[in-house]
Amino acid sequence: MRVVVPFAVATPKTRLSETLTKSERREFARAMLSDILEAIAETGQTPEVLATEPIDLTHPVIVDDDPLTPAVNHVLERTDEPVAILMADLALATPRSLNRFFNTRGGVVLAPGRGGGTNGIIARHGDFRVDYHGTSFFDHLANARAVGATVSIVDSFRLAIDIDEQSDLVELLIHGDGAAREWLVQSGFELDETDGRVSVSRT
Amino acid sequence: MRVVVPFAVATPKTRLSETLTKSERREFARAMLSDILEAIAETGQTPEVLATEPIDLTHPVIVDDDPLTPAVNHVLERTDEPVAILMADLALATPRSLNRFFNTRGGVVLAPGRGGGTNGIIARHGDFRVDYHGTSFFDHLANARAVGATVSIVDSFRLAIDIDEQSDLVELLIHGDGAAREWLVQSGFELDETDGRVSVSRT
Repeated sequence: MRVVVPFAVATPKTRLSETLTKSERREFARAMLSDILEAIAETGQTPEVLATEPIDLTHPVIVDDDPLTPAVNHVLERTDEPVAILMADLALATPRSLNRFFNTRGGVVLAPGRGGGTNGIIARHGDFRVDYHGTSFFDHLANARAVGATVSIVDSFRLAIDIDEQSDLVELLIHGDGAAREWLVQSGFELDETDGRVSVSRT
Repeated sequence: MRVVVPFAVATPKTRLSETLTKSERREFARAMLSDILEAIAETGQTPEVLATEPIDLTHPVIVDDDPLTPAVNHVLERTDEPVAILMADLALATPRSLNRFFNTRGGVVLAPGRGGGTNGIIARHGDFRVDYHGTSFFDHLANARAVGATVSIVDSFRLAIDIDEQSDLVELLIHGDGAAREWLVQSGFELDETDGRVSVSRT
């Protein structure tokens, strides 16, 4: 099985632009990428990064400057073996949660993200194609059924939480244990319970 | 194993007060309670409702008007067998996700909720006590270690999503299939993708 992690090199994490500067967002996105690649490698799989432009990494890199959906579909079109696609901001993913995902049977395996997203896909059916626009979970269910693939859904908190906005940083500070959490802590972020609900603040 | 679902009868779901009227919040909370009780019953367990005041249900009801933490601890103090505690607003819980939770070994089993909450607990160690205030996940880890209990953490999206605020309704409309989702649909709620992100609107 190929395991592919799409990554926007130039402008990652725009929804964190009120929380982090552009250069900080790039550092933080790199730290999250490093965490997911390491977690994948610990399961025994070899992660490949599907990057929008050349990027210096120890893992294999495929460059495709098309948007996310066509870039992933190019990989699917050109591959005969099963392909897993995992988002680069799954900073809570652990080898254990990934093993459960990789070992789930089905022609198409979906790990839903919050808000109707799809954070992980395994395409074992050769005709399946992705569509990350809008409520992609519904589109992926429909696409799988349209090609006659069996569908399995993985129920994982760690794979459902992608780090998009400031409120997501709470989850990373509580449940993370890798480079991205360390970057946040070094950058002065900490949990803040002052108003009775848990949020993050920066010192 | 006893399976206990705490339920605030009079003033449920106050954080939905900008979205639903008081009487709607009561109806919606009852629909969610009915969903989790049914899902628990489908696993073969007998759910008991730990209610703040008498409530008419077909399932057994224990009345304790103390706040959540002491009320749950009263149950733990008075019970020799393992006790599972599940929040009443886990409207995405399915028999399958609950079976995985119930079958997880450990002196204390925790199902984290978003924002540092604890949506499910199994206390098999007789000295364990709960503390739902603040970042309860940390408190429950600490309490389990303090009494020398082994701790297991269940990685479940369906158990991590409690329905507290309007943005949570998105998850229920996408992934739910019970009375609470039906109540939302009948009340005019639907998914809204007009701004490129998925939210709910009411017709």
